[in-house]
Amino acid sequence: MRILIVNVNTTEAITEAIAEQARSVAAPGTEIIGLTPWFGAESVEGNFESYLAAIAVMDRVLAYEGPYDAVIQAGYGEHGREGLQELLDVPVVDITDAAASTAMYLGHAYSVVTTLDRTVPLIEDRLKLSGLYDRCASVRASGLAVLELEADPRRAVEAIVEQAERAVREDKAEVICLGCGGMAGLDEQIRQRTGVPVVDGVSAAVTIAESLVRLGLSTSKVRTYATPRAKQVVGWPMRLGR
Amino acid sequence: MRILIVNVNTTEAITEAIAEQARSVAAPGTEIIGLTPWFGAESVEGNFESYLAAIAVMDRVLAYEGPYDAVIQAGYGEHGREGLQELLDVPVVDITDAAASTAMYLGHAYSVVTTLDRTVPLIEDRLKLSGLYDRCASVRASGLAVLELEADPRRAVEAIVEQAERAVREDKAEVICLGCGGMAGLDEQIRQRTGVPVVDGVSAAVTIAESLVRLGLSTSKVRTYATPRAKQVVGWPMRLGR
Amino acid sequence: MRILIVNVNTTEAITEAIAEQARSVAAPGTEIIGLTPWFGAESVEGNFESYLAAIAVMDRVLAYEGPYDAVIQAGYGEHGREGLQELLDVPVVDITDAAASTAMYLGHAYSVVTTLDRTVPLIEDRLKLSGLYDRCASVRASGLAVLELEADPRRAVEAIVEQAERAVREDKAEVICLGCGGMAGLDEQIRQRTGVPVVDGVSAAVTIAESLVRLGLSTSKVRTYATPRAKQVVGWPMRLGR
Amino acid sequence: MRILIVNVNTTEAITEAIAEQARSVAAPGTEIIGLTPWFGAESVEGNFESYLAAIAVMDRVLAYEGPYDAVIQAGYGEHGREGLQELLDVPVVDITDAAASTAMYLGHAYSVVTTLDRTVPLIEDRLKLSGLYDRCASVRASGLAVLELEADPRRAVEAIVEQAERAVREDKAEVICLGCGGMAGLDEQIRQRTGVPVVDGVSAAVTIAESLVRLGLSTSKVRTYATPRAKQVVGWPMRLGR
Amino acid sequence: MRILIVNVNTTEAITEAIAEQARSVAAPGTEIIGLTPWFGAESVEGNFESYLAAIAVMDRVLAYEGPYDAVIQAGYGEHGREGLQELLDVPVVDITDAAASTAMYLGHAYSVVTTLDRTVPLIEDRLKLSGLYDRCASVRASGLAVLELEADPRRAVEAIVEQAERAVREDKAEVICLGCGGMAGLDEQIRQRTGVPVVDGVSAAVTIAESLVRLGLSTSKVRTYATPRAKQVVGWPMRLGR
Amino acid sequence: MRILIVNVNTTEAITEAIAEQARSVAAPGTEIIGLTPWFGAESVEGNFESYLAAIAVMDRVLAYEGPYDAVIQAGYGEHGREGLQELLDVPVVDITDAAASTAMYLGHAYSVVTTLDRTVPLIEDRLKLSGLYDRCASVRASGLAVLELEADPRRAVEAIVEQAERAVREDKAEVICLGCGGMAGLDEQIRQRTGVPVVDGVSAAVTIAESLVRLGLSTSKVRTYATPRAKQVVGWPMRLGR
Repeated sequence: MRILIVNVNTTEAITEAIAEQARSVAAPGTEIIGLTPWFGAESVEGNFESYLAAIAVMDRVLAYEGPYDAVIQAGYGEHGREGLQELLDVPVVDITDAAASTAMYLGHAYSVVTTLDRTVPLIEDRLKLSGLYDRCASVRASGLAVLELEADPRRAVEAIVEQAERAVREDKAEVICLGCGGMAGLDEQIRQRTGVPVVDGVSAAVTIAESLVRLGLSTSKVRTYATPRAKQVVGWPMRLGR
Repeated sequence: MRILIVNVNTTEAITEAIAEQARSVAAPGTEIIGLTPWFGAESVEGNFESYLAAIAVMDRVLAYEGPYDAVIQAGYGEHGREGLQELLDVPVVDITDAAASTAMYLGHAYSVVTTLDRTVPLIEDRLKLSGLYDRCASVRASGLAVLELEADPRRAVEAIVEQAERAVREDKAEVICLGCGGMAGLDEQIRQRTGVPVVDGVSAAVTIAESLVRLGLSTSKVRTYATPRAKQVVGWPMRLGR
Repeated sequence: MRILIVNVNTTEAITEAIAEQARSVAAPGTEIIGLTPWFGAESVEGNFESYLAAIAVMDRVLAYEGPYDAVIQAGYGEHGREGLQELLDVPVVDITDAAASTAMYLGHAYSVVTTLDRTVPLIEDRLKLSGLYDRCASVRASGLAVLELEADPRRAVEAIVEQAERAVREDKAEVICLGCGGMAGLDEQIRQRTGVPVVDGVSAAVTIAESLVRLGLSTSKVRTYATPRAKQVVGWPMRLGR
Repeated sequence: MRILIVNVNTTEAITEAIAEQARSVAAPGTEIIGLTPWFGAESVEGNFESYLAAIAVMDRVLAYEGPYDAVIQAGYGEHGREGLQELLDVPVVDITDAAASTAMYLGHAYSVVTTLDRTVPLIEDRLKLSGLYDRCASVRASGLAVLELEADPRRAVEAIVEQAERAVREDKAEVICLGCGGMAGLDEQIRQRTGVPVVDGVSAAVTIAESLVRLGLSTSKVRTYATPRAKQVVGWPMRLGR
Repeated sequence: MRILIVNVNTTEAITEAIAEQARSVAAPGTEIIGLTPWFGAESVEGNFESYLAAIAVMDRVLAYEGPYDAVIQAGYGEHGREGLQELLDVPVVDITDAAASTAMYLGHAYSVVTTLDRTVPLIEDRLKLSGLYDRCASVRASGLAVLELEADPRRAVEAIVEQAERAVREDKAEVICLGCGGMAGLDEQIRQRTGVPVVDGVSAAVTIAESLVRLGLSTSKVRTYATPRAKQVVGWPMRLGR
Repeated sequence: MRILIVNVNTTEAITEAIAEQARSVAAPGTEIIGLTPWFGAESVEGNFESYLAAIAVMDRVLAYEGPYDAVIQAGYGEHGREGLQELLDVPVVDITDAAASTAMYLGHAYSVVTTLDRTVPLIEDRLKLSGLYDRCASVRASGLAVLELEADPRRAVEAIVEQAERAVREDKAEVICLGCGGMAGLDEQIRQRTGVPVVDGVSAAVTIAESLVRLGLSTSKVRTYATPRAKQVVGWPMRLGR
């Protein structure tokens, strides 16, 4: 089976890291295709950038020509998943949801550790909309921007571990979710330091996408995610920056 | 004071109707400028179209050159308001929120009557995110598409009245919100038929925007709606379809 | 248009301060009439005093002889608004609701800073009943009684600023609501000190009342706020202390 | 021990019926004193009347000269209980709460059957404030006014049974609470007709008040229900209509 | 009337202490029978032990041969109450619920102080299922195991008082519930130290059970707690360890 | 990898059907071992039977001698999962949770169709405890008992389809979860009849268990699901009915 995993920002190095992480957990026979949006921000850390990413992700996926079986949106707390679900017939999995729904099998409450404080409300709101917020103990910010994670992984681990430890001690989290696509690969180090299970959303999303495909399940089309009605749409597809 | 009121679809006639409605309630000295997005769908009835509208609205507002004091996003239950709040320093008012917060001064519970059933979950989710859902008795769909409202107002009134009456009788709504920018102007007829106050979101939004300006209040920039950080953004501004 | 703004306590100086604040934001052509209850407590800081105020406010408003277009109840977190809504045909706006619904246009979460700790649960409960609590980050008490605010405004500002800063830093509030009618006029100082928008409930209520009147909207009479049924009522109107 | 049970309306016959019901379940050694407010409405069916009753009940209780061990407020869904709690050192029990907390020991969900539809939101709101609403399946109105219950008990039973049956069948209630002080005594008939336990709030309140006294428990005075601060209060006590 | 009070662990000394506490508050004419499960853990501090206790309690109660009028399950936050309700026709009262519903008559919010931190989520979840969690300010752990309470009551009081004081000061609790059957009897000391009412669940449960019996109320059998259907059940009754 | 799938009732035929269903979706290399409890009820349809099953399932799993990688509890809405999580180091997946968390990837809201009405509250409560209830549109009962499903699959399909269709039409469900281990295998027929995705909990649980094992994730042991403390436990293990 072939799974498209779409980064939400335009930084190729992050797409590669995400795809690499996805491949490391994929089942035999699963092909992972990493896609980078053709336009948008080099990192997504707020609503404007996230809305832009929503459209750029849809645009990029629709431009992919080969067949595929599922799509993973690899941004944490970003807008757009519902749009992809309308446009596609294959299952769509957001890594925010994937991490949360996986964490809920592992402990009574989970926390998310993300990058900048300004993205915390986005993540909380996305989890609420997905119906996965009830067992969320907290969303905590490490204070490091997405691109800083890339540039200095050692410092990133320190900052994330500190917030993870506070989440366990103060917020009573029993599981930590890594709240950024760019954190893929840090889970093992953080698990050793905190003693609780650490869920990487990209990895979780790969197994969920594979599972849905294997079970022959895909998005319901009877209401919320029905295919858009035929109508005049100006400026679409965009293919900006191609 | 000058208020920009931005339609979410590309249908000029709807923009004009919205702007006309806005002008009819604006205070003396308030100038209303109606804007139509340069790209997107001719009507917005689902997540894909709504995400596209979110970006097209931001793009159109940023392209407006004159000074202005506030912006109204005139789509019901649409994505994007938070992005505008990040990009602008002036107050941003969404008509979904405006209708709901106004309705809550008039009765113990309110219902929204909108167009197609598929848009009901979007409206419910937007109200939840805005923190205005607690007193929402129901969101009901008339079954008529946005453009059908324009084409056949008489039939529209009948369909909306029927749902409004059921909202009052079955869902115990005490106020009705008109859940579509294109419904502006139907409120008086529906009020006469149902006997409860009817809130038109466009009208409500005009008074709220004026009030915020008069009180010298605008979007808080300390966290969620802080100005986007300086970074490389490909393909922006878009100005597609111009 | 003429708006009655009713203080909840019997201290004339507070009525005057409130009315003055209201006049400072009222639109041209809006006449503000400040009313002081004829009986009740000199300051309202608890349930007994608040229930007494509820009745005293209704009594005072009904005794007002001239015509008027809207009524503002200028107590924070007090009982009684629903009773006024039953008795009157014009719109009724409570400053607790007005501050909260206005704050929600300005940030993702708001906090209220009020006087004594014992009034915090009243305010929380009133916001819950009004359906405006979801985005409330916290209600914090400055520890100063209502009359101390009047007596020593400088100390009041310090105490309120301290709690406002903690609300922003610890509770993640993005907007501050001034939780006491007697705080009217302190908003600008506090805004400068905290860097977030500060909403004064009296000012917000004036613009909301004006808006409702302009839009021709008033309380729904179909259920919760229907006019009381004709029946024998002993001891009403009260006109005590006149 | 002596328990004061205070009616919320001025109709002596209802006070007597309530006191009689209370005596029929009181433990040996418990003396029940029925009190009728000196002012207020002959029946309480809405917010204005309920706020007036709140004050009249406090006024009447404070005027009672002998010693007593607990007070029961015998109105369903009425305002005022928190004020009594501030003014008194003995336990205060509202029959709305008493019926609900008792019903929760008997089934997974309960419904309330009350008089007029306009009182339904008051009851729902009071249960929410008391933290007893989670297991409430519905509040249903029989459509009969309080005084009609007194005048025609047979018709009352029919109307209440019909709603109780619908609550069990449609709303999945497993217990019925009689939602009006004036319904005391109808419980046995309704139980026979519906097959589910029927809780009369007056009876439940007597046992709860007795229990609190026996356990030496009374209202906490550290915060919400602290004794009112010493201050000038005009027009209190009222003793109107005496 | 005869009330069975069933310990959840196999430690006879705790059963005796519980029964003694129950007797100290029982009404004249109420006979208290303390029962100890024939199998299970010597103390119950987690889900496995609690599930085992659930079955052991049901087994022990069914083995009791004499007539009885009500059953109290004397474990805090334990599983099983719903099973007893199905098997018995007499009222069943859990001390977790009894403490919470009693506390809600005494203050605006209550906290529970329990033994080990690992039992906190069980208590929270049981209160949520019982619909009594809304007014819960916090559940706090003293860090002492059940059997340590027995062994060193002085140290227990210190540890519990410390958490109770923090609950009042930090979490704004106005009432403290003793969250362990083994804490029965410590309430008076803790009340003196904290200044707020302290509710012992065993005592509260006795008065509630007595009240239900006196009112002729018992578990509704129409749905959730209907008698189990006749079917083949292997290994039941258990009578292990007898 | 080896996954134990444990039936909750003692009916071997159901265990076999469940294991067969599990094998049909298992990945190559996954061995499925079906286990039947040694004691308990022939079908589980209520709290008493479910509590008994909880203990019987733990007992049966602990008696299994070979190594294994994960455990699936194959009862819908049953008690006990948290106990297994304490006792085991490998991941534990309940089919109730598995169906719900999978359904949430497929539509905006899901409904569960189960057997008898009396089990509906158990399922709702289990979903609430698992934090997966927010997007649950309804839990509906077909009215057929567990063993009737086995005896007459055709009638079962009809009864389930009828409730599924009502869930989609009236409750706005976009996905249906089969709410009984014994329904495994009916999903395809029901999908064809209703037009929405149908999730079988057993199948979903297999893929989730496989995924957790593959990702190296298991139950957090820091708090709620920590291994039981060493203490005296009478009558355990039980091995009744062996």
